[in-house]
Amino acid sequence: MTVSTLEIARELAVSTSSKIVLLVMDGLGGLPNAETGLTELETACLPNLDRLTATSDVGLTEPLMPGVTVGSGPGHLALFGYDPLRFRFRRGATSAMGIGFPLQPGDVAARANFATLDERGLIVDRRAGRISTEEGERLCSVLQGIEIDGVQALLAMEKGHRALVVFRGEGLSDQLSDSDPHHEGVPVAAVQPLAPGAERAADIVNRFIEQALERLREQKPANAVLLRGFAGAPQAPPMGEVYRLRAAAIAPFPTYQGVGRIVGMEVLSTGETLESEIETLERHFSDFDFFYLHVKWSDAAGEDGRFEEKARVFEAVDRMIPRIEALGPEVLAVGGDHSSPSVYREHTWHPVPFLVHSRWCIPGSAVRFTERECAKGSLGRFPAERAMLLMLSHAGKLSKFGG
Amino acid sequence: MTVSTLEIARELAVSTSSKIVLLVMDGLGGLPNAETGLTELETACLPNLDRLTATSDVGLTEPLMPGVTVGSGPGHLALFGYDPLRFRFRRGATSAMGIGFPLQPGDVAARANFATLDERGLIVDRRAGRISTEEGERLCSVLQGIEIDGVQALLAMEKGHRALVVFRGEGLSDQLSDSDPHHEGVPVAAVQPLAPGAERAADIVNRFIEQALERLREQKPANAVLLRGFAGAPQAPPMGEVYRLRAAAIAPFPTYQGVGRIVGMEVLSTGETLESEIETLERHFSDFDFFYLHVKWSDAAGEDGRFEEKARVFEAVDRMIPRIEALGPEVLAVGGDHSSPSVYREHTWHPVPFLVHSRWCIPGSAVRFTERECAKGSLGRFPAERAMLLMLSHAGKLSKFGG
Repeated sequence: MTVSTLEIARELAVSTSSKIVLLVMDGLGGLPNAETGLTELETACLPNLDRLTATSDVGLTEPLMPGVTVGSGPGHLALFGYDPLRFRFRRGATSAMGIGFPLQPGDVAARANFATLDERGLIVDRRAGRISTEEGERLCSVLQGIEIDGVQALLAMEKGHRALVVFRGEGLSDQLSDSDPHHEGVPVAAVQPLAPGAERAADIVNRFIEQALERLREQKPANAVLLRGFAGAPQAPPMGEVYRLRAAAIAPFPTYQGVGRIVGMEVLSTGETLESEIETLERHFSDFDFFYLHVKWSDAAGEDGRFEEKARVFEAVDRMIPRIEALGPEVLAVGGDHSSPSVYREHTWHPVPFLVHSRWCIPGSAVRFTERECAKGSLGRFPAERAMLLMLSHAGKLSKFGG
Repeated sequence: MTVSTLEIARELAVSTSSKIVLLVMDGLGGLPNAETGLTELETACLPNLDRLTATSDVGLTEPLMPGVTVGSGPGHLALFGYDPLRFRFRRGATSAMGIGFPLQPGDVAARANFATLDERGLIVDRRAGRISTEEGERLCSVLQGIEIDGVQALLAMEKGHRALVVFRGEGLSDQLSDSDPHHEGVPVAAVQPLAPGAERAADIVNRFIEQALERLREQKPANAVLLRGFAGAPQAPPMGEVYRLRAAAIAPFPTYQGVGRIVGMEVLSTGETLESEIETLERHFSDFDFFYLHVKWSDAAGEDGRFEEKARVFEAVDRMIPRIEALGPEVLAVGGDHSSPSVYREHTWHPVPFLVHSRWCIPGSAVRFTERECAKGSLGRFPAERAMLLMLSHAGKLSKFGG
């Protein structure tokens, strides 16, 4: 019998004044460089993280299950204790999350791809030749302002041919089939209601599509828009309620602010630099019990294949550690949402180094914050979804089961 | 799909004449002492346990899940292969277990708190000023002997303001709401039936409460009793049936005898000393196939913060190991129900050292029976609920799956 972290926490969490800082380095895990045989973490000089490792409980987190690679959304949800298999958000929701579009209850969002139709109305390119973001922006403004039967269609740009469309009004439903037929040589599909009560939403979306095609008729190469992944605002029980704490997100980028918002964190205003993030933490330290601090640049370097750059990001983070420690949080945890090895240039399935530091640790033989050293730690390899339970217990925020 | 230990054992267990001794040191795991950096196990001189470790399969058991602290009840159930999340017993059952009150099938037990009512009948103190155990005993005898409609109410003392009341008679049900409103300033609540068929039980309990308040009316400060956690006798399939063996408990204290009884062990009469427990084991060695031997003092020392004393308990246990080995059990397993570090003075969530010794081991680099050495073992970190399967297989008592 498996009980989720949220279920057990609802039962056992207690409110205390202790403070937890969770530092998430995006795409933390790496793979050995062919020349040196060392990973990015092994290459970097990390005196503070190494010192922490030698005095912490350490291990490797499994973002979902052995061998499965995750996106940043599921990777973060797991670290916050939300089972990514249970909290699955369709494309409209993750697109909104990705650009930080604040979905309201009742909204229905969809991914909108700009596409090319031929003169017979058949799709010849589902991505309109991968138009530029600037061109996409322009097309979004062409479509902006359509209103049908009291429902507004709000366009927001993602990247290239990808945009977000949000339908806002009374009585909508996200139980809708895609207008994107997912292959070429066929016309745009009519959106169908997938559940009773979704008929009006389907009708409104189809009328939006009709007007959009009309407005785009003379554009080139993108003379159409394809909608998919209709989704309402993502629903998750707030961390404050489940864990009985006040949680804040310090994350400069919209996707991560979005994930934080979904789990009920207050998103603090911050700049893009590490320096600015740490200042934000210092400024708000007395206002919250749990801080999620996100470092984006490690993942970006990994995905771009910039091995040295990724190691340099870790070194920059390492230099900030003493400032976090100086605030005196009862618990400092350091981990990642997934691995993004520079040699792979993409997310991978490898487990991710994790440490939790408090007065109640039993440090083992691991003395460096690396993939191979953390594998020796007393936490072993464990589901990322359980990491919150460790942080809460180390902070004295979780009572005994069956006590 | 997860299959519980009981389910798989029911399918695979075979009856053999081999013998298993499971030595449980309560609160086994510890944390480093600030002065020495060593845990209690690392501080103790344990030549026999260290020798066993070096020739055993060793690892760390997870009592429930990473980061969750358990009470002794769930910690033991897991070691016996009973998932604590599945076998959850309400307060009435654990109270009875805790004082070794032998609940019979059909009994309904509840925790009874002595409390104080004001002249308007409102609860002013749910614990009656935390009266002494002697005073509690006296009040129990005031309430003893009430019988309603053929149902007897049996009172038994726990500690301070806490007692146990057991309703014994035909046709009762434990599907009852609490009479304890769980806060002050309100009257005693009427017990409500929570399921069809519980009406008569609710009526009987309410009439008991009425008579009890009448009997307590002139007492000070405890002039009332509040009931909560109605529970029938805990139900669990007996080990004998599931594992096809004869199981005995050698445990001097009522709680542990209670857990043993719940899983169908025969509780052997024994004294409180280790010496006496070992003698009991020797005396009955030919009568059973599985022996659970419980050592209480390690937990008591940990909870009291007596670091040196806890190390001394381990040393005393260590000296008994050769006498257990001399009996020639096919399997000797040593573990704990949870950690109770002396520096924490309470149960903690840390995983617990475990070893299983038989002819069929593949010893690793662990050479001492300590938290950090066991972390290196080939068993890794695994759910305590699976420990029985290891013991059974090492004893040749588990057949092949899909054979």
